[in-house]
Amino acid sequence: MTRYMAVISYDGTNYVGWQRQKNGVSIQEILENAMKETFGTDVDCTASGRTDAGVHAEGQVIHFEVETNIPADKIPFSVNNHLPPDISMLACKIAPKGFNARFSAKRKTYRYSIYYSRFPLPMLEHTCYRSKVPMDVELMKEAATKLVGTHDFKCFMAAGSNIKDKTYRTMYDVSVESKDNIVTITVTGNGFLYNMVRIMAGTLYYVGIGKLTPKDVGRIVAQKDRAQAGKTLPAKGLCLLSVEYDEDEQQPEQQD
Amino acid sequence: MTRYMAVISYDGTNYVGWQRQKNGVSIQEILENAMKETFGTDVDCTASGRTDAGVHAEGQVIHFEVETNIPADKIPFSVNNHLPPDISMLACKIAPKGFNARFSAKRKTYRYSIYYSRFPLPMLEHTCYRSKVPMDVELMKEAATKLVGTHDFKCFMAAGSNIKDKTYRTMYDVSVESKDNIVTITVTGNGFLYNMVRIMAGTLYYVGIGKLTPKDVGRIVAQKDRAQAGKTLPAKGLCLLSVEYDEDEQQPEQQD
Repeated sequence: MTRYMAVISYDGTNYVGWQRQKNGVSIQEILENAMKETFGTDVDCTASGRTDAGVHAEGQVIHFEVETNIPADKIPFSVNNHLPPDISMLACKIAPKGFNARFSAKRKTYRYSIYYSRFPLPMLEHTCYRSKVPMDVELMKEAATKLVGTHDFKCFMAAGSNIKDKTYRTMYDVSVESKDNIVTITVTGNGFLYNMVRIMAGTLYYVGIGKLTPKDVGRIVAQKDRAQAGKTLPAKGLCLLSVEYDEDEQQPEQQD
Repeated sequence: MTRYMAVISYDGTNYVGWQRQKNGVSIQEILENAMKETFGTDVDCTASGRTDAGVHAEGQVIHFEVETNIPADKIPFSVNNHLPPDISMLACKIAPKGFNARFSAKRKTYRYSIYYSRFPLPMLEHTCYRSKVPMDVELMKEAATKLVGTHDFKCFMAAGSNIKDKTYRTMYDVSVESKDNIVTITVTGNGFLYNMVRIMAGTLYYVGIGKLTPKDVGRIVAQKDRAQAGKTLPAKGLCLLSVEYDEDEQQPEQQD
């Protein structure tokens, strides 16, 4: 058996999330069905991590094992023939020795998107959260700096998570940009607690609309107080942009 | 009865088009149902023009007549309460005397979006056409200039249209831009034949991928030859951006 690593993109709107579940159609199920069609055998796909129902991905990374004569870089063509338009394989290569999409992951980057409009804008509704009031982006940028570094992020963990300790994570970069009426919050970290990005986004959003100050955000992190942080923003505004591995394990590049 | 004009936006993915049809759910049907919920009476909506199944709109204009105590600028709030996230009313005002969303329309602007990628990009798939090869945007820009002005656009009319003459139209602006890996073709004209924008986009696309030259495009328009023009690109890449009326009939502005 040969182990492959591949980059996957999906529009999560119509799925119950990455992971197979009894209560609906998952991205994993559709992808593994497409692989069975392609390779004629059952294939298990392991992702860098789960994404929740409605969350999107531009660069999810997976690994899988199969015996096939199809060259690695041709596998996306074959697999995509069996995938719907909202799931796509963008690149594939033979995995480095010892590679595991989940456990080898070193950094992940997520983007959360928010637009301001008095009324819903249908062309943005399935990829963004709508703010009914304008946001102060400069204040959001200032607050974002309070999140960079190594902190106990218990304050940004969903209630009901079964992780009780080990809640330290390192954020390498948290940036806020405004473009074409959409405010994006981009976060790169070495790992994320359950719902962490959506709560971080909700907290920066509260700063944007004046419900919190940048100073409050520093205090919330220091005091580890979930109750003081912003609300969990909805899944649809979240997108997994990329997963990074050690240098010798970098994902295959998309070819022109 | 008071006549209102309103701006509507929709993601056309899940609809059979603007107009009520027996074979599926139309935008008009959903909108008129929402108005019935809002006003407690049947309301007819007339749009500036039909859009086909899968075509989107950021600024469709409609008129309708109703007796109501709701102030015009509050009507979008009421109606949107009864609309799904993929259809939205963005603005509303009392229509000027004699206004008709269809017959008073003076100019319309459409955008067609194309991205280049070897593999489908799910986040773009329902609003763009995918090119499997790169496009030469400069050549497309040059070809676009051949379409500006008043021409007999028979060459860009779908077979089966029941318009046999009166195929002259004026294009005020045809522009091609490339941004974030998406090539957009934006066309403003005084009217469009059936499928005309999608055939114009297909023709400029053929120039972009080297199947036609800018000079060919000038010749196709002059010779009125549909067979020489590009293919009709799919509906999903098309979006009605705005409809313009005479100065005293301009659409209500979206308020902050």
